Amino acid sequence: MTERADGRQLDELRPVTIERGWSSQAEGSALISFGNTKVLVTASFTNGVPRWLTGQGKGWVTAEYAMLPRATNDRSQRESVKGKIGGRTHEISRLIGRALRAVVNTKALGENTIVIDCDVLQADGGTRTASITGAYVALADAIEWGRAKGFIGKKAVPLTDSVAAISVGIIDGVPMLDLPYVEDVRAETDMNIVMTGSGKFIEVQGTAEGAPFDKEELDQLLVLGAQGCAELTTQQTAALAAEK
Amino acid sequence: MTERADGRQLDELRPVTIERGWSSQAEGSALISFGNTKVLVTASFTNGVPRWLTGQGKGWVTAEYAMLPRATNDRSQRESVKGKIGGRTHEISRLIGRALRAVVNTKALGENTIVIDCDVLQADGGTRTASITGAYVALADAIEWGRAKGFIGKKAVPLTDSVAAISVGIIDGVPMLDLPYVEDVRAETDMNIVMTGSGKFIEVQGTAEGAPFDKEELDQLLVLGAQGCAELTTQQTAALAAEK
Amino acid sequence: MTERADGRQLDELRPVTIERGWSSQAEGSALISFGNTKVLVTASFTNGVPRWLTGQGKGWVTAEYAMLPRATNDRSQRESVKGKIGGRTHEISRLIGRALRAVVNTKALGENTIVIDCDVLQADGGTRTASITGAYVALADAIEWGRAKGFIGKKAVPLTDSVAAISVGIIDGVPMLDLPYVEDVRAETDMNIVMTGSGKFIEVQGTAEGAPFDKEELDQLLVLGAQGCAELTTQQTAALAAEK
Amino acid sequence: MTERADGRQLDELRPVTIERGWSSQAEGSALISFGNTKVLVTASFTNGVPRWLTGQGKGWVTAEYAMLPRATNDRSQRESVKGKIGGRTHEISRLIGRALRAVVNTKALGENTIVIDCDVLQADGGTRTASITGAYVALADAIEWGRAKGFIGKKAVPLTDSVAAISVGIIDGVPMLDLPYVEDVRAETDMNIVMTGSGKFIEVQGTAEGAPFDKEELDQLLVLGAQGCAELTTQQTAALAAEK
Amino acid sequence: MTERADGRQLDELRPVTIERGWSSQAEGSALISFGNTKVLVTASFTNGVPRWLTGQGKGWVTAEYAMLPRATNDRSQRESVKGKIGGRTHEISRLIGRALRAVVNTKALGENTIVIDCDVLQADGGTRTASITGAYVALADAIEWGRAKGFIGKKAVPLTDSVAAISVGIIDGVPMLDLPYVEDVRAETDMNIVMTGSGKFIEVQGTAEGAPFDKEELDQLLVLGAQGCAELTTQQTAALAAEK
Amino acid sequence: MTERADGRQLDELRPVTIERGWSSQAEGSALISFGNTKVLVTASFTNGVPRWLTGQGKGWVTAEYAMLPRATNDRSQRESVKGKIGGRTHEISRLIGRALRAVVNTKALGENTIVIDCDVLQADGGTRTASITGAYVALADAIEWGRAKGFIGKKAVPLTDSVAAISVGIIDGVPMLDLPYVEDVRAETDMNIVMTGSGKFIEVQGTAEGAPFDKEELDQLLVLGAQGCAELTTQQTAALAAEK
Repeated sequence: MTERADGRQLDELRPVTIERGWSSQAEGSALISFGNTKVLVTASFTNGVPRWLTGQGKGWVTAEYAMLPRATNDRSQRESVKGKIGGRTHEISRLIGRALRAVVNTKALGENTIVIDCDVLQADGGTRTASITGAYVALADAIEWGRAKGFIGKKAVPLTDSVAAISVGIIDGVPMLDLPYVEDVRAETDMNIVMTGSGKFIEVQGTAEGAPFDKEELDQLLVLGAQGCAELTTQQTAALAAEK
Repeated sequence: MTERADGRQLDELRPVTIERGWSSQAEGSALISFGNTKVLVTASFTNGVPRWLTGQGKGWVTAEYAMLPRATNDRSQRESVKGKIGGRTHEISRLIGRALRAVVNTKALGENTIVIDCDVLQADGGTRTASITGAYVALADAIEWGRAKGFIGKKAVPLTDSVAAISVGIIDGVPMLDLPYVEDVRAETDMNIVMTGSGKFIEVQGTAEGAPFDKEELDQLLVLGAQGCAELTTQQTAALAAEK
Repeated sequence: MTERADGRQLDELRPVTIERGWSSQAEGSALISFGNTKVLVTASFTNGVPRWLTGQGKGWVTAEYAMLPRATNDRSQRESVKGKIGGRTHEISRLIGRALRAVVNTKALGENTIVIDCDVLQADGGTRTASITGAYVALADAIEWGRAKGFIGKKAVPLTDSVAAISVGIIDGVPMLDLPYVEDVRAETDMNIVMTGSGKFIEVQGTAEGAPFDKEELDQLLVLGAQGCAELTTQQTAALAAEK
Repeated sequence: MTERADGRQLDELRPVTIERGWSSQAEGSALISFGNTKVLVTASFTNGVPRWLTGQGKGWVTAEYAMLPRATNDRSQRESVKGKIGGRTHEISRLIGRALRAVVNTKALGENTIVIDCDVLQADGGTRTASITGAYVALADAIEWGRAKGFIGKKAVPLTDSVAAISVGIIDGVPMLDLPYVEDVRAETDMNIVMTGSGKFIEVQGTAEGAPFDKEELDQLLVLGAQGCAELTTQQTAALAAEK
Repeated sequence: MTERADGRQLDELRPVTIERGWSSQAEGSALISFGNTKVLVTASFTNGVPRWLTGQGKGWVTAEYAMLPRATNDRSQRESVKGKIGGRTHEISRLIGRALRAVVNTKALGENTIVIDCDVLQADGGTRTASITGAYVALADAIEWGRAKGFIGKKAVPLTDSVAAISVGIIDGVPMLDLPYVEDVRAETDMNIVMTGSGKFIEVQGTAEGAPFDKEELDQLLVLGAQGCAELTTQQTAALAAEK
Repeated sequence: MTERADGRQLDELRPVTIERGWSSQAEGSALISFGNTKVLVTASFTNGVPRWLTGQGKGWVTAEYAMLPRATNDRSQRESVKGKIGGRTHEISRLIGRALRAVVNTKALGENTIVIDCDVLQADGGTRTASITGAYVALADAIEWGRAKGFIGKKAVPLTDSVAAISVGIIDGVPMLDLPYVEDVRAETDMNIVMTGSGKFIEVQGTAEGAPFDKEELDQLLVLGAQGCAELTTQQTAALAAEK
């Protein structure tokens, strides 16, 4: 029988906390934890859109992801010091942006821009999925801020659904949910799943790090992932229902 | 009934050609076409490995992807002129490298490095999948070059399998194989599938560009992709079987 | 009579909190707040020194300062995205490093390197002085970590004193202590004072933003600053005395 | 008697081929070979000019040159990866642009911009001269494209002449035409000559790599170069006369 | 008794020369020497202001500082070659700009921009203070140029005072004025003082490089610095009084 | 009859001055003027060679060229601020390096490196030719410095000849020598000629900026250039013969 590093069940998430409204500066924000992984997400609302989008009556949502240099066990050099952004950072920023845009009706958002910043304060696996999950909460609050200020119509529905994300993987042939760093490095297959609150797929990214995987394993991972996303959806709903 | 832009069947690949050994300089090379998409792949073999890998008896395979500025319909600024590599370029380079390493036994490769360069001379959708498919041919030839020079053992088997890749997508609710640019921009869901010659998955990357997708659609796309990869495997085998 | 924005006395600090050991990854860390200004400081300990210092039996302490893009009221572009570090960032990083090195006996530290990262999570004036004050706590813990691991001698005294910093300024001709952002932008003269726990000056940086200042004003600012640093020293001592 | 590496006469060009219209995307294009040197040239036509030229009734022609990383015998690092363009690349890009502009009447071109991209797919000496020679063909086709689209007047004559270029050099005291790489590295003097179809000089760049040269040697090189350019002019004319 | 490296008194400046109008291109310029330290300062006058300042009826003064690679005893790599500006360069550029703006009435300057360039041709300590002192002369001449051209009102008084700067320091416990490089590297405390011609402080930057300093030492340094600045003010006045 | 802007004869140089030993820091230096063009050249001598040359018993000479931002009539942005070096700067740096290496016997120089810095303090045409001409003087002095220090053999002859350079051009069909900026911008053909003291060519770079040129014009330019270089050689000899 497979024992997990922290004693969890194979289909069990790490403790999740969402501190909504952590920032006193941003229009929406959340400090989200998946176990020891902690991400500070802010949503910055600006009335108006980038020049290339002007006059189309549509809004824009984009995201940037970064890690503090000592979020990880060994210190990494800052990307600002290197003078360039690495491939991994680019890839995750693009993923977060795509995931959020998949639940945004840009017409209903109107000519407004929301920039999501996901800064990993502490990293222990699953930073991209925690970022997406927390970003949805910050985004929802920024939209309500824009509505309160009159930048978004009173009855407009810019969010068509909610979005959450989780990682799954196969270790020693066993599929399991929400991998911390120690499991992540051992996984033969690693998959990130992004789903809507209504249970459809937005993004499925499965990678064989060790042995290639077959259809049956893929199906098992998708089931685990769907379950994890559903639980995260519940948490997001609770966070957004609370008084701010 | 859905008609495709170029009259193909839903499960039909565009014409594929592989000009093996196109370069007189590189240890392995291929000019691969998927319809109007043309990618020049070279494999550069170096005896020795990067410093961080020295002394472990293992080799290294990595890849870089780029597009000529006028590969596309509108000219893009060169990344060398911008002074930095974009997120899309980084992401595809990393994907190609991971895909190839998934079929390489680095112990059998020995302390040798192979750098794959995929330069898109003309782009019409599917440049990343054409790159991976052509890269396998260039890689195989570079390995044989290394064996002939004595850098790789006579009986070593550095390649554990072959690898090919294809794109699939859903347009107007209809899943189809190998999307050219005009179809790609219209797709609701876009998926890239990387598989071994023996039919297992190395990478599955599905993205909802429009509507989220469900499990049934995902399954249909996987079937189409598996069929396309199998056909590409046949073409790779034929190219490598020919006299160089 | 001058009223301060938040009702404080002219010589009163904002509420100060020091969450020592905030990070589970770093050898030393502190989340320090001066009112709404919040800085996460980590101290990364490495056995060994940069090449240019090797073989001299001396250690090295350096610092990097940065702000999250939405730490401020308006979002700033990331320096990693710009591809270069701004003058202000450079200047503050250098100041923090100098301030810490002024209380470090590098011989007693031995050939070890400590890198301090000060990341401003939320900014409301005084980010550089909060950084220095929090950095001392993180540094002290990293040194004890190094001693516990045997990298620093049991009886070595790498810290010759403590260090704290505070801002002072003149608004409408009135000197006052610890300026938040709303006061900082109105100040005619702005001064940052870095002092040892024993009450000596490490750095005095006074700048006339509006009217030039005279010796009497300078003296008043120095008195206020010395008082503020003394209070911060008390807080640092308390934080370090607590169980971690 | 001097034998050349490939058995050519001293005043003999390597085999030249010009595949006009190689690209299905660009308004003008050519894949040109001087022996093993292969350059893909595209000409991108845009109606309008850069801001600094607006409103003067004049067009603009510029060029960029680059090499694929494995165009050469040893792989070079990509300039996009280095984050900057090398001196040699800059120098050749500027040379190509100047050479083309010398035969362009910018008034007759009207407010249109043509960007020439010369990408070296395989390098064996003479890449800059092959680039210029191929660029003329691509430029001529792009101009005709602009005329067909109505961006250039029906009777306008934007091209005042044709332009071609060739290298010459002195090896062991013997002047010779069109040096491949193996000869180029041995040459005492290396000269690139750019001429109009009517036999006048646009650019003469002679460099003593080994011994300085005298007037008599210079004159011999100019005669050889003029002969080579004349032959290339014939080839350009033939390529442009053929059906596309 | 403390002997100085060059035999000067403790409160004695090095020989100062100001070659006003050195450049035949710039609207204002000065080649200033503090002993072996030589800085070429130019002031470039442009009618108009940066976009962010347009329409406010105010001008803008900014400064850039740099060193030639062999200004120092060992050659430094050019910042243009490194591709980025170092922290020290940034810090000094900002200091010079602040110092000059402290004596400029931007309303009286009108919507004009003056860019000050301070290029150190030879460095022997005190390059930032020589830069500020020379910059005032160049700035004054550029303003008069602007007045002569009619860009500045005939009776406008853009300069509210003059500005000069000097370094002071403590070596072996002894405060002294205007440190050359050999003294600068030995100083326990190093201070740069920027003052108006009327004797008020614009900037006081004192740093403990070795032992922290106390209030009494600080006061002694301020006295020395004030005396040095007063002498420099006299020299500036003389330079500006001379026929150009 | 053609009148020149400054009343000179067609074959007359502008006043040339060479202040040898201008820098008190560099091993060799010269402040050279060609009329209003002023270039500060320093030669930095280092015992040892770059890694790629180690152990071959040969030395290395290289050059860097740059302009101060206000050397020209309009201020240019610093290349350090832009973060990259422009094509023109690269091209001229490479030219100066090649010109100097053409008169250096690297075996006789031994494993020593000399870096030439040519910084244009004021620009009025001919900055690259003034740089080369001044660089020879600085180089010669740096070599003698190295000999005096024992890094170069007492009887070694690292310099095989001297080198000087001048510009020539055709304006309104008339060839003339040493063009200042006002003539340079009007020239139909512009040529830079680099020659040895013994009258041989090192580099000939002729460019048709307007009308292409023919062999006869080329010959006239070469005659003028040879005469100019001969005069510069005389000046170099005089400068080097004087007591330093």
